[in-house]
Amino acid sequence: KMLKGVLCTVLFVGALPSLAEASQGHISVVLLGATGDLAKKYLWQGLFQLYMDQVSSGHSFTFHGAALTALEPGQRLMFDVLKKLACPPDESPDRCAVLKDQFLKLSQYHQLKTAENYTVLNREIETLLRQEGLKEAGRIFYFSVPPFAYTEIARHINSSCRPPPGAWLRVVLEKPFGHDLESAQQLAAELKSFFREEEMYRVDHYLGKQAVAHILPFRDQNRQFLDPIWNRHHVERVEIVLKETVDAKGRTSFYEQYGVIRDVLQNHLTEALMFLTMELPANVSRAEEVLQCKLQAFRSLRGLEKNSAVLGQYQAYASQVREELQKAQDYVSTTPTFAGVLIHSDSLRWEGVPFLLTSGKALDERVGYVRVLFKNRAYCTQSETLRDAGHSQCKAKQIIFYIGHGALNTPAVLVSRNLFRPVMPEGSWREAVGQSDLHIFGQPLSDYYVYSPVKERDAYSVLISNIYHARKDFFITTENLLASWGFWTPLLESISHQPPRLYPGGVENQHLLDFEMVSGEVAFTLAEPVELLKPNRPMPSDYKTIQSKFRHSPLVSAWSEELVSQLASDIEKTASRTVAHSGQFHLALSGGSTPVVLFQRLARHHYAFPWKHTHIWLVDERCVPLTDAESNFFSLHNHLLQSVRVPYFNIHPMPVHLNRRLCVEEDGGTELYAKEIMALVANASFDLVLLGVGTDGHTASLFPQSETGLEGAQTVVLTESPVKPHQRMSLSLPLINKARQVFVLVLGNGKHDITTLLSRVGHEPRKWPISGVSPSSGQLVWYVDYEALLG
Amino acid sequence: KMLKGVLCTVLFVGALPSLAEASQGHISVVLLGATGDLAKKYLWQGLFQLYMDQVSSGHSFTFHGAALTALEPGQRLMFDVLKKLACPPDESPDRCAVLKDQFLKLSQYHQLKTAENYTVLNREIETLLRQEGLKEAGRIFYFSVPPFAYTEIARHINSSCRPPPGAWLRVVLEKPFGHDLESAQQLAAELKSFFREEEMYRVDHYLGKQAVAHILPFRDQNRQFLDPIWNRHHVERVEIVLKETVDAKGRTSFYEQYGVIRDVLQNHLTEALMFLTMELPANVSRAEEVLQCKLQAFRSLRGLEKNSAVLGQYQAYASQVREELQKAQDYVSTTPTFAGVLIHSDSLRWEGVPFLLTSGKALDERVGYVRVLFKNRAYCTQSETLRDAGHSQCKAKQIIFYIGHGALNTPAVLVSRNLFRPVMPEGSWREAVGQSDLHIFGQPLSDYYVYSPVKERDAYSVLISNIYHARKDFFITTENLLASWGFWTPLLESISHQPPRLYPGGVENQHLLDFEMVSGEVAFTLAEPVELLKPNRPMPSDYKTIQSKFRHSPLVSAWSEELVSQLASDIEKTASRTVAHSGQFHLALSGGSTPVVLFQRLARHHYAFPWKHTHIWLVDERCVPLTDAESNFFSLHNHLLQSVRVPYFNIHPMPVHLNRRLCVEEDGGTELYAKEIMALVANASFDLVLLGVGTDGHTASLFPQSETGLEGAQTVVLTESPVKPHQRMSLSLPLINKARQVFVLVLGNGKHDITTLLSRVGHEPRKWPISGVSPSSGQLVWYVDYEALLG
Repeated sequence: KMLKGVLCTVLFVGALPSLAEASQGHISVVLLGATGDLAKKYLWQGLFQLYMDQVSSGHSFTFHGAALTALEPGQRLMFDVLKKLACPPDESPDRCAVLKDQFLKLSQYHQLKTAENYTVLNREIETLLRQEGLKEAGRIFYFSVPPFAYTEIARHINSSCRPPPGAWLRVVLEKPFGHDLESAQQLAAELKSFFREEEMYRVDHYLGKQAVAHILPFRDQNRQFLDPIWNRHHVERVEIVLKETVDAKGRTSFYEQYGVIRDVLQNHLTEALMFLTMELPANVSRAEEVLQCKLQAFRSLRGLEKNSAVLGQYQAYASQVREELQKAQDYVSTTPTFAGVLIHSDSLRWEGVPFLLTSGKALDERVGYVRVLFKNRAYCTQSETLRDAGHSQCKAKQIIFYIGHGALNTPAVLVSRNLFRPVMPEGSWREAVGQSDLHIFGQPLSDYYVYSPVKERDAYSVLISNIYHARKDFFITTENLLASWGFWTPLLESISHQPPRLYPGGVENQHLLDFEMVSGEVAFTLAEPVELLKPNRPMPSDYKTIQSKFRHSPLVSAWSEELVSQLASDIEKTASRTVAHSGQFHLALSGGSTPVVLFQRLARHHYAFPWKHTHIWLVDERCVPLTDAESNFFSLHNHLLQSVRVPYFNIHPMPVHLNRRLCVEEDGGTELYAKEIMALVANASFDLVLLGVGTDGHTASLFPQSETGLEGAQTVVLTESPVKPHQRMSLSLPLINKARQVFVLVLGNGKHDITTLLSRVGHEPRKWPISGVSPSSGQLVWYVDYEALLG
Repeated sequence: KMLKGVLCTVLFVGALPSLAEASQGHISVVLLGATGDLAKKYLWQGLFQLYMDQVSSGHSFTFHGAALTALEPGQRLMFDVLKKLACPPDESPDRCAVLKDQFLKLSQYHQLKTAENYTVLNREIETLLRQEGLKEAGRIFYFSVPPFAYTEIARHINSSCRPPPGAWLRVVLEKPFGHDLESAQQLAAELKSFFREEEMYRVDHYLGKQAVAHILPFRDQNRQFLDPIWNRHHVERVEIVLKETVDAKGRTSFYEQYGVIRDVLQNHLTEALMFLTMELPANVSRAEEVLQCKLQAFRSLRGLEKNSAVLGQYQAYASQVREELQKAQDYVSTTPTFAGVLIHSDSLRWEGVPFLLTSGKALDERVGYVRVLFKNRAYCTQSETLRDAGHSQCKAKQIIFYIGHGALNTPAVLVSRNLFRPVMPEGSWREAVGQSDLHIFGQPLSDYYVYSPVKERDAYSVLISNIYHARKDFFITTENLLASWGFWTPLLESISHQPPRLYPGGVENQHLLDFEMVSGEVAFTLAEPVELLKPNRPMPSDYKTIQSKFRHSPLVSAWSEELVSQLASDIEKTASRTVAHSGQFHLALSGGSTPVVLFQRLARHHYAFPWKHTHIWLVDERCVPLTDAESNFFSLHNHLLQSVRVPYFNIHPMPVHLNRRLCVEEDGGTELYAKEIMALVANASFDLVLLGVGTDGHTASLFPQSETGLEGAQTVVLTESPVKPHQRMSLSLPLINKARQVFVLVLGNGKHDITTLLSRVGHEPRKWPISGVSPSSGQLVWYVDYEALLG
């Protein structure tokens, strides 16, 4: 919709330098957005660097700057940029002048607005090649334009500017690649209709940062040292950090939509995280192998919850947004400009190791690093003061990929000298002899082996060179991108209304943004400083757990996350009290999808739960093998049992699978389970039964009009479900009603109708089995979330 | 045997000072060993302090020094000591002079050698009391004599010196209380025949050290702060340390028998460990409640193995021993003068937290402390250099009970200021204003709240006061003592022949005694420094794993501990290889006592074992319920499964218990197991079967002349054992021989005869079922320890 002009002119049509020597063919580079900020700052310089590096490669080049601006002003703007191109310090001034002159002659400006503009551009390239007698090697289209323009440009390139068969097409895309999983999927789908996966080069310029780009090669080249220690037994924590001193001023129209997580964590820091946590492929420069290992690493990440992150916003941000976006004075932004996120991987290698990703604007210093801190396993007998200065095992052990800026002010790889002397590629990294008075992460620089790049290279030069070399491992594939959005989107959604902590900005922040890990979550260390909060600032609603009555029994209600967390705490309290009193705790759990979040919460946040003394029973089961994904027990095992230490003997799956067949009455599974309950549970009275409610009012696997289980003496029954798998085993209502405590968990607005209904009806178990739950001497508590309660 | 004299005289027979005022009754204190070192240095001063403190208590006192020395020289020696008694600095010189004079008048010397001496002493006490018209409150006998004299003295006191009914007897005993569990039990049994438990006060003078004595009260008074953090989730490690600069010169006759573990770790450091780890009783000054909690804490300790400790010996020690004990020049002492021991508790509270106990002579400094280091869970966003000096959460968090000496040179309690401000009893501890330039454990003193005692009191004064007040919680009960010996004895035995690392002594030790934790064990950080070893020094044998052939199959042999460790590694290697290749690993394990050490080793040292992909099968089972202590599965669960994460579905106990009855043929347990194997194990060919051998040549539960299982098509069989429980279920020989690998583990000299026999016989499974183990296409490896192999 935006590209409406017609004019498209080739600036130079005369003979081009160097073209005659091209035996490898010709490459046309088209830079879309040729006069934008990124192009000015990095891309033209990167293209010039490519030209300098590859001038003798056998390829010939032309560089086509393009933008919406009309030809003349566009030419002028572009050549103002090109005039400022610089050679690296090690290039001789003479050669530099010649190369720069050649580069300028090979560069042209185009106005690209309409479909016709693209057709003309294509014709010009063809004409040029024919005139010069050149074979076409390929075309690079670099999209340095806002993402809303992607689709139209992509369509034009695909329909009018594809190179002829035998030559390749490479389109280079700059982030943002969507705003969440859905928009990223949509954008990816659109692009896919124009380009093949191998044609797309999605840039994350962090992958061009020398220290980041060296993580995988470092792991590969130091396998002998890292193999034994690159795991949860040795790594204490990992910090992946990008701190900035600048704020978002002048960029709020972009920033207000994205925030720090989308801007930095979802892409840059996540990529570094993947390089650290992924299993090492046999060949680390094989893009496909790297990708597969990365995707595997993504799958191992534990899902993020609201409390996985702490969020901040520098104080001036709100007024900057109001000013730049012309918002009213009462406009409130919850966009975070600072985030600290705790990530866990459930892989065997990393289980339990905290990965802390932190980024923010208006912080105390500009610095980026990836820091792997190892556990201190040593005891040094000699007193600190009497120890030789040497490289004691009691000093911290760390490996740091120093991305840049900060105290070191150069990319670097640092390895504690008491760890090992790393193998580094001699041509590209050299040992640095540093200022010995400098301290990095609490230790003098002399405690580390320090390596810095022989040639410091800008990220974009690295990436442009990699595009030329088709090194796809330096770019983000569609699968990789979607995996990352899939990981971040639930967090982004859960925090979208959360007010970030305000911070003054700069060195004034002091301890305000420090945060701590507690039971797998993070929280700011200091309590919210009241003096910073404007008293009249309208805060997004902050609901609390409320308590009331439902069907004459206690009701606990909250948003689902708080509700589940409250329920988990209540279960733990009951368990601890019961174990203290009687030495064991008999807990009967329901199947289905609702309790999964509860199981996960119990597994991850309740380390003091007396699992060793807990017996786990099933409230109901589907007649499938226990290892079937449909089995309630399988889900319980997956989400809870495999993460906690319940003794084998205390786990009591329902015997739905006997004599290698399912729920056959003659096999006596129900009697067997009933006998097991009688034998182990005093008085057959469970300490706690957890139930759910179906939209039809069923509970356990007791469905409306069920012929079994609603009354009578049988304690365990076979029942029929209206949905597949039809056959079920279930505890009976009379047995459930013998329990000391019954908690009913109801979540989601899908349950709103049945909840409303239940609030009105009496005891009618044949119609709505849940209405028959009424412990004879125990206590019933309802846990119903706001969505189910209020619709 | 030693007390052979006759003379026993009362020194003062005139009217005694203060006695007239005694309304609470009279206390006679008898100090046995009145002229020995301990008495000279501490005990008389402690008794004088008691007198000063209690002179107005309503009790009257007499002090009876006793020894083997004849009356006159004994008197002289004793009064030379008494003349040097000093008042505390806060006592007025006048009152001091009066009190000292009174104390001297109340003190007498006795020669106590023969039975008659004791009778005479008793008579004198009685006479004195009658003359003065005093009611007897009680008698204290303080044993400051070598332990070999205990029994005879105890017999005499019991038979001749017991106070009359209504008055109490307190006997105070000084360590050593035995040399290992057996000798301690013996000594305890002897003492028990003379004294009731409540009459015995076993001194561990560490319990009188003010900082140690305050551990429990500190935990009690700071429950609110400590409750949430005094556990494995928050505590990173605990160090309990007593370092000395002195060596054992002049004491080698004692030291050579005991060594540092018996001298310091078994008692002093263990008591401190207990105060830290025990659950807090409701009332911490109730001796019985404290004792029960302590015993519970002892039961939770994980057993020590040889590699739980690192041992050292200062270089001059050997020559000191040779000189003082007149040993030959080739005499080698393996007595450790330095030890670092890693202890784990398996309690829910402490699981996984390393407790490091360290002590040694000839070290760099004299210092004692108990240090609790908390985990760093914080991320500080602000750069270190830009942070306020304040009490950042990123600084280390620790609580230190500083016993004395070292840099602080006073007992103290230190709590990091970023942790909490502790509650301290105002009368006895006060906040110290210290030298702010001092650094303690890596942090300036100003980072801590520091408390020191209002009055510094010598441990013996504290203990003597506690004897007077019958505060038995300051003393070691018999149960406590035996629990401690029970814990330490296995380690002492396993290291008795291990050569300690030699160290030069003093500051020269440098990093030589630093050690590190690796998989639940400890090892010196630096490799054995060859230059310190005298090349001709005869070293205790250092056997290595040897490899050879046994019954035409590979044989691995070593001392049992090395052998089991080798076997565990081999199993892990096989498992990892198999999982890498086929995704799962089917392991069949035998029951009985032999594999228990293997199970423990696998559970504790093989964190990288692919348990998640391992299936556990039983080779054989006894026909008892799985939760019966006799069940093979129960033992396997206890020693292995409960500590590792094998998915529930991958655990395959033998179905010996069906329809609530045991191994009834009609229940079809063997068929069930056979079907399960067929369904899950490709080709019914286990990846690894672990077998043992009985003294009768049985293996699995296949006994000589068995009618089932030795041949034929049946894969799982019921068998009869000659020993109870008779009924068994077992894999058959043909099934075992289908395995890819079979490892046979044979341990102990009880197996020497059968091992010898097996080395000679051929394939005769009916006579010796183990001889029928011969995998058709798999590999058989024998793991036989030296005891079984060589007898």
